[in-house]
Amino acid sequence: MIGFLAALPSALALWPIPRTLTQGTSNTRADQFSISAEGKSSPVIQNAIGRYLQIISDESFVAPVDYKRGTVKTSGTLNSLVVSVKSTDETLDLNTDESYTLDIPVNGKASLKAQSPYGVVRGLETFSQLVTGNGYSKAILNTPVHIEDSPVYPHRGLSFDTSRNFYSVKSILRILDAMSYNKMNTFHWHVVDSHSWPIESKTYPALHQKGAYSSSMTYYYNDVKRIIKYAKDRGIRVIPEFDVPGHTYIVGQALPDIMSCTNKLPNWDHYAAEPPSGQLNIAKPESIEFTNNIVSEYVKLFPDNVFHLGGDEVNRNCWSEDPDVQKYLAAHPGEDVESLLVNFYAKVHDHLATTGKTAYTWEETLFHSKYVPDNSTILQVWIDQTSVQKAVAQGYRVVSSSYDSYYLDCGHGAWLPNWDGNSWCDPFKTWMHVYNYDVAANITDPAQKKLILGTEVALWSEQSDEHVIDARLWPRASAMAETAWSGKSDVSGRVRTTGEVASRLHEQRYRMVGRGIEAEPMQPLWCARNPGACNLP
Amino acid sequence: MIGFLAALPSALALWPIPRTLTQGTSNTRADQFSISAEGKSSPVIQNAIGRYLQIISDESFVAPVDYKRGTVKTSGTLNSLVVSVKSTDETLDLNTDESYTLDIPVNGKASLKAQSPYGVVRGLETFSQLVTGNGYSKAILNTPVHIEDSPVYPHRGLSFDTSRNFYSVKSILRILDAMSYNKMNTFHWHVVDSHSWPIESKTYPALHQKGAYSSSMTYYYNDVKRIIKYAKDRGIRVIPEFDVPGHTYIVGQALPDIMSCTNKLPNWDHYAAEPPSGQLNIAKPESIEFTNNIVSEYVKLFPDNVFHLGGDEVNRNCWSEDPDVQKYLAAHPGEDVESLLVNFYAKVHDHLATTGKTAYTWEETLFHSKYVPDNSTILQVWIDQTSVQKAVAQGYRVVSSSYDSYYLDCGHGAWLPNWDGNSWCDPFKTWMHVYNYDVAANITDPAQKKLILGTEVALWSEQSDEHVIDARLWPRASAMAETAWSGKSDVSGRVRTTGEVASRLHEQRYRMVGRGIEAEPMQPLWCARNPGACNLP
Repeated sequence: MIGFLAALPSALALWPIPRTLTQGTSNTRADQFSISAEGKSSPVIQNAIGRYLQIISDESFVAPVDYKRGTVKTSGTLNSLVVSVKSTDETLDLNTDESYTLDIPVNGKASLKAQSPYGVVRGLETFSQLVTGNGYSKAILNTPVHIEDSPVYPHRGLSFDTSRNFYSVKSILRILDAMSYNKMNTFHWHVVDSHSWPIESKTYPALHQKGAYSSSMTYYYNDVKRIIKYAKDRGIRVIPEFDVPGHTYIVGQALPDIMSCTNKLPNWDHYAAEPPSGQLNIAKPESIEFTNNIVSEYVKLFPDNVFHLGGDEVNRNCWSEDPDVQKYLAAHPGEDVESLLVNFYAKVHDHLATTGKTAYTWEETLFHSKYVPDNSTILQVWIDQTSVQKAVAQGYRVVSSSYDSYYLDCGHGAWLPNWDGNSWCDPFKTWMHVYNYDVAANITDPAQKKLILGTEVALWSEQSDEHVIDARLWPRASAMAETAWSGKSDVSGRVRTTGEVASRLHEQRYRMVGRGIEAEPMQPLWCARNPGACNLP
Repeated sequence: MIGFLAALPSALALWPIPRTLTQGTSNTRADQFSISAEGKSSPVIQNAIGRYLQIISDESFVAPVDYKRGTVKTSGTLNSLVVSVKSTDETLDLNTDESYTLDIPVNGKASLKAQSPYGVVRGLETFSQLVTGNGYSKAILNTPVHIEDSPVYPHRGLSFDTSRNFYSVKSILRILDAMSYNKMNTFHWHVVDSHSWPIESKTYPALHQKGAYSSSMTYYYNDVKRIIKYAKDRGIRVIPEFDVPGHTYIVGQALPDIMSCTNKLPNWDHYAAEPPSGQLNIAKPESIEFTNNIVSEYVKLFPDNVFHLGGDEVNRNCWSEDPDVQKYLAAHPGEDVESLLVNFYAKVHDHLATTGKTAYTWEETLFHSKYVPDNSTILQVWIDQTSVQKAVAQGYRVVSSSYDSYYLDCGHGAWLPNWDGNSWCDPFKTWMHVYNYDVAANITDPAQKKLILGTEVALWSEQSDEHVIDARLWPRASAMAETAWSGKSDVSGRVRTTGEVASRLHEQRYRMVGRGIEAEPMQPLWCARNPGACNLP
């Protein structure tokens, strides 16, 4: 059994696996070839070509399973890879066409054809994974290779929290690199939360001046633009989240007058999901004005046509016990905390709509309040699979970050220092568990299925920062990336199992390490080299 | 409450906390001082002085809790730290005296007095932690400072597996650095196991030639000597473990004739705790000869007077179903697998005794076999606290690596790729859980208490390698380090709580990061800056 599995050709070892792949039995030398665009080109294409020439030049990767392979004989030489696109439109959104076709002959000229520059980006990543070290040279094995590929879901993301702990720009760029190695296309930037406000605000400079951990732990406009540009070059959208009205303690450092229940101690747990407590005071028009000003500012800084408004985990006690809220409600019979919340959401969502952007919001905005967002709104669900079912049944587009499968911070135990307990979302989500999640489970109506935009793994940063982030994300995010790009099953409809994909994911992990991503090992190297030998009987 | 806790003076923020510390109310400038030995010196002392001058020069550390402190006024200047020792004997063993006394006046000359060079090493670490950044200068706060310090346990270790995955020498040296920052003194090197034999053998070169993952993933003699020297300079013993007769699949790559149940598939779980199965064939005298030759070789390479013989998790099926074992037993009525195992242990332990070294062994050698090791043997227990009690009740010296508290690899989920399950030793061991373990729990007899040598956190490397190791170990190993150095309670007998030590451990974590150790954050930085504010009510 081992012998057979070990003999799987490396050319199969692509991550995520392409939709269709056919290959031959020759090997092609690939150490001196050009990559160039034929016909139309664009900055994204040119940058991608330059980037992958460098990546391929720098690496001489041999998969763990091939450690005894030795040098293979080549019967042809790759001279060039010629890239062509139908359109040079660099718009990056849910409608972006990421498909590509890659042809690599035994000898001569390979071709990569795509509909958009981002199809080129995806195809070049695939191409780079096909090039393997071969003694002092490089080769592409099992040529000719023909690949036709396109993603199953248009939204393949990472939800990333930069508030609880800070991440340098450099570390974020490294994350974007790794995302591109896995064909992920959405960086959902949960930029602010209660613990810090790390992004420059030109409207309210006190927000970052008093709310960032330090001036050097601040994303200035130029930093943000650099991140967005870097992401775009890799076909990655940057969707910012400004979470309101909860998770906003830090706003009170700049604007204390619009806050409720700021840093209640010791019983913060009565007012918030975690310390410090603090929510925008929804009885005050100034809170709505503040939020809308924030929206107005950041819709300009972030070019993506989707904008995340948060809306998760609001705490009613925070408001019902607030003296200002109580005074307001006493003066306005018929109103209550729920009506105030509906009013807040309506004003903020309506304002966002005037900017032409699509609202993205956590599921509670719909499910845990009486507000009914416009049907164009995208819901991000995290609680359980029934949330996905409910969302699409009500006609909303949905992205799932099911905590039980996709919260990559979980399983790390409690972080309240005087409590020797577990985390609410234990246990740790293994790559197998991530891989086994099916966002479309229990949804059969084709119209409802079409409302599933995709998935996002999430990294909340209570116990994470730039020093540990690589291993927290990789290769577990890669497991999601494959299911979102390639789907749960192959073209024949057979569901892929973790036992059979493990060998490819090992390869992807070691490839990422070679590219500077400190991804964690899934197993002893011995197991990576001997596929199947470390399976449960 | 927050205000009060935040005002704790930084001079208290030492990790591990010294036995006694008194301090004043002045601050002393500390940016231009010498460190020198008065009277006797030794290479360990001279190297430590040079090392800490560099560390102090490189760092300008300010604790998270002091982020708003600004520049403090100093009323004196430190001119020199003068080190003196009673003995320059550099022997490093269980009897090494690590005590020291440190006096830092408001002005002038500080003194560090120790019984041995290793007391100097410990005292210099403490001294380095007292120096804090102070604007463009540095200072020691709350002078004069007087510290008298010594460890509660003489064995404060890390059990470290370099077989399942490989660690570069560089990464091991970094671990030794971090151990010294936490006053840990024992690197228990679980160098070989079933998955690879990464250490050069001059007796059986085929062991590493066929058993190391690659020639570049091999610890050659010079590498081992470098590691031992580096450790000694930091007051760290290196105790090697050559685990027999189980966990030895890889030996069969070089010496197949002395093996039983090599890589049984698919039902490896019938023969071993994890794949691949394989144990030395205890019916063959050649297995004993092999083991004794290994012992003879490595007792010379490793100077420590303790040598670990493994002995954990032997599997009886592996032998009872082995044709050679069956044939032997058929020819020797009265013998059985148990008597063969006793014979194996006796021959190997007796041979080790002839080298003058003390045997160190996993608890199963005593508790799960009929062999009775000599009472000089040190038992390493891992199963539960009753093992500690049983060991000392039978008169054995004991080191605890209780898996439920100290296995730092646990809680990471299963690693068998076709199984979406948890790990046997879930959940994750938080730093609070590590800190709360008491190796002396339920042991009251003073004579038995004296048999407790200390503790070792353990890192088994199925899901770990040099790319992720820092965060796996730190600061959780620091939590053990304090309880092993400082004990569970202060001089008044009051047991320290995780809630009260959190702030110091935050400081130690950020200090380690500043020194190049990628330790993981315990909480949002906001919590580190606001002690108590993130406690459970």
